[in-house]
Amino acid sequence: MQRTIRVTVWNEFIQERTEEAVAKVYPRGIHEAIAEYLRQQPGLVVRTATLDQPEHGLAEDVLRETDVLIWWGHVAHDKVSDAVVERVYRRVLEGMGLIVLHSGHYSKIFRRLMGTSCSLKWREAGERERVWVVAPWHPIAEGLPEYFEIEHEEMYGEYFDIPPPDELVFISWFEGGEVFRSGCCFYRGRGRVFYFRPGHETHPTFYNPHVRRVILNAVKWAAPVGGPAPRYGNVKPLEPIRGAR
Amino acid sequence: MQRTIRVTVWNEFIQERTEEAVAKVYPRGIHEAIAEYLRQQPGLVVRTATLDQPEHGLAEDVLRETDVLIWWGHVAHDKVSDAVVERVYRRVLEGMGLIVLHSGHYSKIFRRLMGTSCSLKWREAGERERVWVVAPWHPIAEGLPEYFEIEHEEMYGEYFDIPPPDELVFISWFEGGEVFRSGCCFYRGRGRVFYFRPGHETHPTFYNPHVRRVILNAVKWAAPVGGPAPRYGNVKPLEPIRGAR
Amino acid sequence: MQRTIRVTVWNEFIQERTEEAVAKVYPRGIHEAIAEYLRQQPGLVVRTATLDQPEHGLAEDVLRETDVLIWWGHVAHDKVSDAVVERVYRRVLEGMGLIVLHSGHYSKIFRRLMGTSCSLKWREAGERERVWVVAPWHPIAEGLPEYFEIEHEEMYGEYFDIPPPDELVFISWFEGGEVFRSGCCFYRGRGRVFYFRPGHETHPTFYNPHVRRVILNAVKWAAPVGGPAPRYGNVKPLEPIRGAR
Amino acid sequence: MQRTIRVTVWNEFIQERTEEAVAKVYPRGIHEAIAEYLRQQPGLVVRTATLDQPEHGLAEDVLRETDVLIWWGHVAHDKVSDAVVERVYRRVLEGMGLIVLHSGHYSKIFRRLMGTSCSLKWREAGERERVWVVAPWHPIAEGLPEYFEIEHEEMYGEYFDIPPPDELVFISWFEGGEVFRSGCCFYRGRGRVFYFRPGHETHPTFYNPHVRRVILNAVKWAAPVGGPAPRYGNVKPLEPIRGAR
Repeated sequence: MQRTIRVTVWNEFIQERTEEAVAKVYPRGIHEAIAEYLRQQPGLVVRTATLDQPEHGLAEDVLRETDVLIWWGHVAHDKVSDAVVERVYRRVLEGMGLIVLHSGHYSKIFRRLMGTSCSLKWREAGERERVWVVAPWHPIAEGLPEYFEIEHEEMYGEYFDIPPPDELVFISWFEGGEVFRSGCCFYRGRGRVFYFRPGHETHPTFYNPHVRRVILNAVKWAAPVGGPAPRYGNVKPLEPIRGAR
Repeated sequence: MQRTIRVTVWNEFIQERTEEAVAKVYPRGIHEAIAEYLRQQPGLVVRTATLDQPEHGLAEDVLRETDVLIWWGHVAHDKVSDAVVERVYRRVLEGMGLIVLHSGHYSKIFRRLMGTSCSLKWREAGERERVWVVAPWHPIAEGLPEYFEIEHEEMYGEYFDIPPPDELVFISWFEGGEVFRSGCCFYRGRGRVFYFRPGHETHPTFYNPHVRRVILNAVKWAAPVGGPAPRYGNVKPLEPIRGAR
Repeated sequence: MQRTIRVTVWNEFIQERTEEAVAKVYPRGIHEAIAEYLRQQPGLVVRTATLDQPEHGLAEDVLRETDVLIWWGHVAHDKVSDAVVERVYRRVLEGMGLIVLHSGHYSKIFRRLMGTSCSLKWREAGERERVWVVAPWHPIAEGLPEYFEIEHEEMYGEYFDIPPPDELVFISWFEGGEVFRSGCCFYRGRGRVFYFRPGHETHPTFYNPHVRRVILNAVKWAAPVGGPAPRYGNVKPLEPIRGAR
Repeated sequence: MQRTIRVTVWNEFIQERTEEAVAKVYPRGIHEAIAEYLRQQPGLVVRTATLDQPEHGLAEDVLRETDVLIWWGHVAHDKVSDAVVERVYRRVLEGMGLIVLHSGHYSKIFRRLMGTSCSLKWREAGERERVWVVAPWHPIAEGLPEYFEIEHEEMYGEYFDIPPPDELVFISWFEGGEVFRSGCCFYRGRGRVFYFRPGHETHPTFYNPHVRRVILNAVKWAAPVGGPAPRYGNVKPLEPIRGAR
């Protein structure tokens, strides 16, 4: 009954190959750190894709066979081709789930779906982040404690220029004095979008068991639900119209 | 992996025993019409409870073993004891799902959870209702067409005095000229509440396959998600406080 | 104390000059029908702009001096230059209000701000529309009755592919059997966006006193509120950070 | 054009008369500290009411002449008569604005309107609070900086058991490591409710110019808007019904 969820983990995969501090933490890439965890979960089929592949690894047939796409990008947002962004965008409206991680807030696809600048404040000081659950009724909070800590992370601070989230799951506290809406759900077309804040490339955040759990929960939450596919355009009346003009 | 969901279908079960027009449609009660369908679904364990039973069939242990409670009431809202309402209320805040059907909009438990009068317009003319999906991304819309029709139903019209729903899934069109927010999701504590409009006692609405599908989808949606159980009250600081006063 | 609100009414102004049926209803253009009403209201300063003007009448200084922009377009959405769309978009994020009318749902600027296709169903049968208030607490409902009727209008039907509105003010009933979320509020950056459904070019909808009142209310609602202008980018900590890494 | 807003500031007014630490900060009561500021604002007419007055100072005619009621209570929530709570509740549904301050989260009226327990975490350590604006588009943020600090305050921490706010305006950061949804808007009936977190009785919070500005903004936001008064109950059809049954 439980359907298999087909996940594609996308990563720009640049800094892991050019910066020692990043390579040390994610020797096989951030996508592999995420994928290796997801592959251990029952009911998921997981593949990865990276910027340097043809069509960034996101050819039509890959997307057609993807239920949930996870997106991490940072230094090369503008290298992502508009055609691929358009393709992902259309798939989200058709029902594909999208999970945008950390610096992916500035990706073309996230800004396209939000309709805002997605700007924010930031600071790389490796400070403490404490992620608080503010929606204990939410499936993305399953199995989590009331809060969890990430010892060292980049700070993101408000104002985060997004539309008011349809559901707000997490709020982060930062040692340096800021707060941030860290887990945000959005509905677009038939698709479901989740933004999750943590995940700077120099910190081992994607090995954190709570962070991993959030990503797993989000994959299940974002999977297509099988609602009706809308028909658009000119339609005939369903009831008689009197005195039309 | 898929957990069994324990459903209790509650019905005041009065009109089916006192009004011929109702008895003809629901000879064994509205609760049985709903329960017989749910019992055919894999992964559900279903029981029923009625007003005339001791504690209205909702003793502490019954509620403790209920994941989702379905509620139908109409002529005897004031006969439901405040103690039982309080008990159901606490269970919802703890995480039990609640599905309120049709005239249950005026039940004590729904009004308690909404914080509003839950008043509306109504008309018993057996007119046509057309239920439109306005959230194709929602799990409660799974397997439904873009709209479905109920040939004869009581009309409920706006303004429906509820808080703005956290999610609006359906809007109904009525032959007599009204509209209604027919499928409304609310989050309360760790619990999930769904209000669904159709279901007048003189119409065979609960045999309608689309209506049944909505109820099944809502049961799955409302089942507890396993998020953190909040601790309330006085707490120690998690970080050092300088210069406290 | 009440600040003057500077309104610019934008219209593509094509069909009024090329189609007799439209010219008859709006001889001086839809923009003038709206502007003539708004000019009678205290506290508003009103100008108009049209597609055929240089920069579509929306030069930098015009937008800088506009508090609320009203937008009507239909047959020439793709004739609006991307540079002007970008300019309007940036002004909305800075705080300018935007009111999008009827077929403007398909304008570049609305789709850009929504992040969705903004598609819908439609039918030109001149049928009856009844607009119901579902948010009597909303300033855009000020002075309105519980519902109002428009004798002849084009039909727009669900699914309307927009993000769930931040506030839903109106739902329309149509004679032919459809419903539509007809008054929708969205927040983007510091700006406020209102979509209002009625307003087909062959019907005298913009002379309807209720429709006019909605537009006036929306102008007041959408005017900039003077909240803080966010600073983005790299920031210093506000509190000491221990053990940074 | 700008209508006068009639404000009633309600305070239980007990600790100011029984505890020296409170009396020192608010010698004439918290209500007077708030009222003296509001009285200086153009367009407001301000009165106060306290628990010890007949009907707690909230007789029928007082409420009928109140546009916005401000509520501060702490140690005597259960001393407020149910009849007065019911009266306030009905007035809110009719359109009266309600601003609930700090420990008022546990008042009967707030819990009644929310439908939840309104529980939270707390700590009296006089720590630093930093209030961040997360809705720069909101009228309650008018004239505020991006954040403001309160040097010494009681801490309130998540999970705050309220329904998801219809609008979230502020999030607080606390020195001790918690976060809190500090400015929350709710719509109930025709009324508007704002909860604002700061305001412990031993701290001079209600003299803080930013806090005062928030309260002033909230008064303007919560004032009745003049939307339609809903009619409830049995109604006649607006359109012909064929084949009724």
